[in-house]
Amino acid sequence: MTGPNKAPFRGVAEDVKGRAACYKQDWNDGFRSGLRILAPTLYIFFASAVPVIAFGEQLSKDTDGALTTVETLASTAICGIIHSIIGGQPLLIMGVAEPTIIMYTYIYNFAKSQPNLGEKMFLPWAGWVCIWTAVMLFLMAMFNAAVILNKFTRFAGELFGMLITILFMQEAIKGMLGEFKAPEGKDQSLQLQWLYVNGLLGVIFSMGVLYTSLASRDARSSLYGTGWQRSLIADYGVPLMVILWTALSYTLPSTIPSGVPRRLFTPLPWEAKSLQHWTVAKDLFSVPPAYILLAIVPATMVAGLYFFDHSVASQMAQQKEFNLKNPSAYHYDILVLSFTTLICGLLGIPPSNGVLPQSPMHTRSLAVLKRQLLRKKMVQTAKEGMMKNDTSSEVYGKMQDVFIKMDKGSNSISANNELKDLKDAIIPEGDGAGKVPEVFDPDKHVDAYLPVRVNEQRVSNLLQSLLVAGCIGITPIIQRIPTSVLWGYFAYMSIDSVPGNQFWERIQLLFITPQRRYKVLEGAHASFVESVPFNTIYAFTLFQLFYLLLVFGMTWIPMAGILFPLLFFFLIVIRQHFIPNYFNPCHLRELDAAEYEELEGFTPDPSTGDDESVRSRDAQPEYASEILDEFTTHRGELKRRNSSFRDGRLLQLNSVKMTRELSRTASRVPAIREGY
Amino acid sequence: MTGPNKAPFRGVAEDVKGRAACYKQDWNDGFRSGLRILAPTLYIFFASAVPVIAFGEQLSKDTDGALTTVETLASTAICGIIHSIIGGQPLLIMGVAEPTIIMYTYIYNFAKSQPNLGEKMFLPWAGWVCIWTAVMLFLMAMFNAAVILNKFTRFAGELFGMLITILFMQEAIKGMLGEFKAPEGKDQSLQLQWLYVNGLLGVIFSMGVLYTSLASRDARSSLYGTGWQRSLIADYGVPLMVILWTALSYTLPSTIPSGVPRRLFTPLPWEAKSLQHWTVAKDLFSVPPAYILLAIVPATMVAGLYFFDHSVASQMAQQKEFNLKNPSAYHYDILVLSFTTLICGLLGIPPSNGVLPQSPMHTRSLAVLKRQLLRKKMVQTAKEGMMKNDTSSEVYGKMQDVFIKMDKGSNSISANNELKDLKDAIIPEGDGAGKVPEVFDPDKHVDAYLPVRVNEQRVSNLLQSLLVAGCIGITPIIQRIPTSVLWGYFAYMSIDSVPGNQFWERIQLLFITPQRRYKVLEGAHASFVESVPFNTIYAFTLFQLFYLLLVFGMTWIPMAGILFPLLFFFLIVIRQHFIPNYFNPCHLRELDAAEYEELEGFTPDPSTGDDESVRSRDAQPEYASEILDEFTTHRGELKRRNSSFRDGRLLQLNSVKMTRELSRTASRVPAIREGY
Repeated sequence: MTGPNKAPFRGVAEDVKGRAACYKQDWNDGFRSGLRILAPTLYIFFASAVPVIAFGEQLSKDTDGALTTVETLASTAICGIIHSIIGGQPLLIMGVAEPTIIMYTYIYNFAKSQPNLGEKMFLPWAGWVCIWTAVMLFLMAMFNAAVILNKFTRFAGELFGMLITILFMQEAIKGMLGEFKAPEGKDQSLQLQWLYVNGLLGVIFSMGVLYTSLASRDARSSLYGTGWQRSLIADYGVPLMVILWTALSYTLPSTIPSGVPRRLFTPLPWEAKSLQHWTVAKDLFSVPPAYILLAIVPATMVAGLYFFDHSVASQMAQQKEFNLKNPSAYHYDILVLSFTTLICGLLGIPPSNGVLPQSPMHTRSLAVLKRQLLRKKMVQTAKEGMMKNDTSSEVYGKMQDVFIKMDKGSNSISANNELKDLKDAIIPEGDGAGKVPEVFDPDKHVDAYLPVRVNEQRVSNLLQSLLVAGCIGITPIIQRIPTSVLWGYFAYMSIDSVPGNQFWERIQLLFITPQRRYKVLEGAHASFVESVPFNTIYAFTLFQLFYLLLVFGMTWIPMAGILFPLLFFFLIVIRQHFIPNYFNPCHLRELDAAEYEELEGFTPDPSTGDDESVRSRDAQPEYASEILDEFTTHRGELKRRNSSFRDGRLLQLNSVKMTRELSRTASRVPAIREGY
Repeated sequence: MTGPNKAPFRGVAEDVKGRAACYKQDWNDGFRSGLRILAPTLYIFFASAVPVIAFGEQLSKDTDGALTTVETLASTAICGIIHSIIGGQPLLIMGVAEPTIIMYTYIYNFAKSQPNLGEKMFLPWAGWVCIWTAVMLFLMAMFNAAVILNKFTRFAGELFGMLITILFMQEAIKGMLGEFKAPEGKDQSLQLQWLYVNGLLGVIFSMGVLYTSLASRDARSSLYGTGWQRSLIADYGVPLMVILWTALSYTLPSTIPSGVPRRLFTPLPWEAKSLQHWTVAKDLFSVPPAYILLAIVPATMVAGLYFFDHSVASQMAQQKEFNLKNPSAYHYDILVLSFTTLICGLLGIPPSNGVLPQSPMHTRSLAVLKRQLLRKKMVQTAKEGMMKNDTSSEVYGKMQDVFIKMDKGSNSISANNELKDLKDAIIPEGDGAGKVPEVFDPDKHVDAYLPVRVNEQRVSNLLQSLLVAGCIGITPIIQRIPTSVLWGYFAYMSIDSVPGNQFWERIQLLFITPQRRYKVLEGAHASFVESVPFNTIYAFTLFQLFYLLLVFGMTWIPMAGILFPLLFFFLIVIRQHFIPNYFNPCHLRELDAAEYEELEGFTPDPSTGDDESVRSRDAQPEYASEILDEFTTHRGELKRRNSSFRDGRLLQLNSVKMTRELSRTASRVPAIREGY
């Protein structure tokens, strides 16, 4: 992100210049990867398609079928294709997400309640909301609004994440309870027992999907199965579980009441009901002028949410630890988003924006790909050199040349720096005139010491968008998914979104008695646990919790609920002018660091991490994913954790040693207080 | 166990002599503990009552209600009271167990199939089986049969344990499927939908009980809740979950079809149907003489099973690591078992025998009690001495005196030996003429260095048996438990019985690819994984698995299945004459060590275990259980595990250091081979 500057389009211009320089390479690098690009493509396609289908079902339920899975898939495909071709940051994945569904539900309910609009004018009015949203996003891009992203601290981000978690869980529970009820407008004379059978089976299916999906996340580090089996389950666990439980629903005995379990309701895209959406544009001016103006209110909320969501997703896809080479394009991407939102509005489909967790998942899967390519070439070079009995400096030199050649933007200085650990392994001492030491094993050491590199390109994003488009053609297959499977999936998304959210960790801390705090300190934990007094943590967390309940309560208000994003925008003021009066700045810095301010956590150092070097003995290609799994969450975000502080605590029994230890850890840990 | 000797009643006589010497103290020590004895009593009562109720339901289902929960509770109570008063080892807990249920099912099915017996003569004929069993057990006691227990190696014990695991799971699955079926002899016109509702709800309840019970096991080390809450859930998790799910079954909406969920079927003990059992003795001679003789066949099987089960349960309750002071009484306890079996046969109820895992759980809970009592007194003494500024040797001397006084059988030499670590903490150097060092904290150090001691007495066993007897009076409450809750409990027992069974661990190894073996070695693992070649492990495990399937298959044969215990007795021959021809004796010793032969595993040493000393900072009374939890399984058995071998493996990259390390670990680990 560029620093604050006021000239209109300054940010956009810089972004365009930066991305244009690598635009051609974005395509070349993708095509040059050959068929291997299909792995990250499929990975992201499935990670993207399943939630879009689920959100489609939620939307269909909440808008009485006015918008369904067909429209969410169409939006995701169209916006994805546009973004992958003309967007700035091609690592960013587009999709219809929960905030869109919530806002569209409010818009639908409002339209339905207004005699001058009604269900018939819902889509044209929503079209106006999109038009106004596009205008506002355009203005934001023009006036370089992305620079204010810094004002949204972790406090707001965590709150938003937790709100989504709660909304997912609410959706799962509402859906599950709905399985016990006759659908609205349907035959109310359905037998009570039919509903019980459907509902109870729904609970079993939902819980089954939830439990097996959660379990599949840990497949990669499982003891069982071969490497590709473990990778398959870890990477495609959720879609596999959706398929598995759908298949199971067809194994039920034939004596089960007909229509159990209830399945996804979505019209086929070629039915009349679907086709009418696509002509919304011609109804736009049938909306009464007062309502055209009124659409500015929801549009403000949508624009704010999209701006925030889109930029944060982009940020997460470009985390520092991924060592990306190409520049960011926050301003320009808002401009592209304005364009795609306008198109969706005119087509009568809900718009898409940059989504979490798929965007960082995308980057991560491309890092694995790049690693495989780099590793293969460098190991080969090293082995050739060793066969020819080259000196160790010659071998290293050739490996560095390969690295620089494959990793554009590297020069001999930066490469020498990044490959230092590898160099030390090849040339342990002296000037490297001798042979390569016998303990050096190219397979192991290259794996352990290779820096993270991402295959930055546009092909995987384009291909996965095309695959999503293809999903619209297989609607008859999608219709076979039992709705209860999707409720289980919502519960899964809810639980899966929690790890890594420090707000959640602090909520848990509220329930831990002082006597058990040592357990927190023994495990992996954030640095604030050590450096901020517990009472301060409690006060901060309780305030955040109170605010969360306020926002959540607001979403329940029938009409005014649409204004809930205002509470988020208001957080900027609260954070800047209210919170600092009550909290010590050092503590605030720990509890509410913006990403870039945050204390550097402990990162395993491969040069001393025996762990890595031992395990790489059986390095398979898919092993690269396992390494990455260890320092990213299930959702692709990088873990930022200090190592356990346990060592220091053990020394409290021995005060002399402790003083020494303290001086050693002081740089990392500001203060050690009583009470642990 | 005494060595082989042939004189009749020699073993019994020695046992009686040994136990008579401490008989009075067995009562005094119990009563002297005061109300604290109620904690282990309630713990064992619940651990005992829930399975007995579950087995009663299984028996009722399998014998068409001829025997029910009332009879299993009665047998457990009667045998428990007799054993706690006149039995040899009072730590042994009596109860009706799975082998009894299986054998009684065969006996019932056989009786039903014989026109000369029929359902009416089932109990009198079962009475004859008990009479013959009693005769055989008497002969076993007389001829000191307990000495052959050594011939039953781990191989047989693991097989038997795994068979029970499979039978439990089979029972859970059969029970769950049964919820979808109309009960035999009941109205077959029950609506299909009623059965679906009942069955699906049954699946949810069973899974709920299983999942919550499994989760409750880890409550003690949970981060949440106060100490007593965690202890309550960890100690009484299973009965609490049975109560919780039973209560939940009453919160179902009133629109649910009546009779859903199906509940426990057991007649009230004061109904005519129950009362008729108690007059079996007068029908004994209505059994045709040929059948009286034929009863010898099942009696042989029952006697063999009981002998084995009873002695192994007793062994597990007296493991070396519990540091028991009073002598064992294997021979005499078989004699008492013969007597209780006779009584049960004459009363028309299924007999009880020593049960796992309750017996070692009993010992463990008494160890916690004793620890609390010892700790309190010694900390008090130390603090008094430090207040009076005594020299450190004086303080230590007083603490040792307290220890010897409270721990009968200790003398100053043994105490000095066992309290060495404590002494070193008080007198770090010199002759102890100086003050107690400031770092010494009685609360911490006594907790960390106190050896394991068990409060050996008879009161807890007697009281818990009386409580089981009291359960018969609350049959109307027990009838409220949904049957599906019990199927969940069977599944729980099945899964809970697996940890610690090396056979199971070796079965898992079969499915681990060679590339993943390092993961096994990194975690806690048995020594055989390191010292026995994998092909040998595979061959041994496949043979054991084949034999298991053979035995399991045999239990399915309608009539001859009753002979399945023969296959176990036959294992003695196989183990002694067949297996040694195919396996290296060193490997056999590792894979099939009798308990006493087994390699000593790694035991955390409190003098270096900083872990303990740090955590004891917040030592609560219930903390003692947490320590014990760490070196026992959930079932109360002691873990025997080498520490991770990881350190050694890491050094493979550095051959010099590795050699040194090897010589250090060589004593523990016989061989390190290629392939890790």
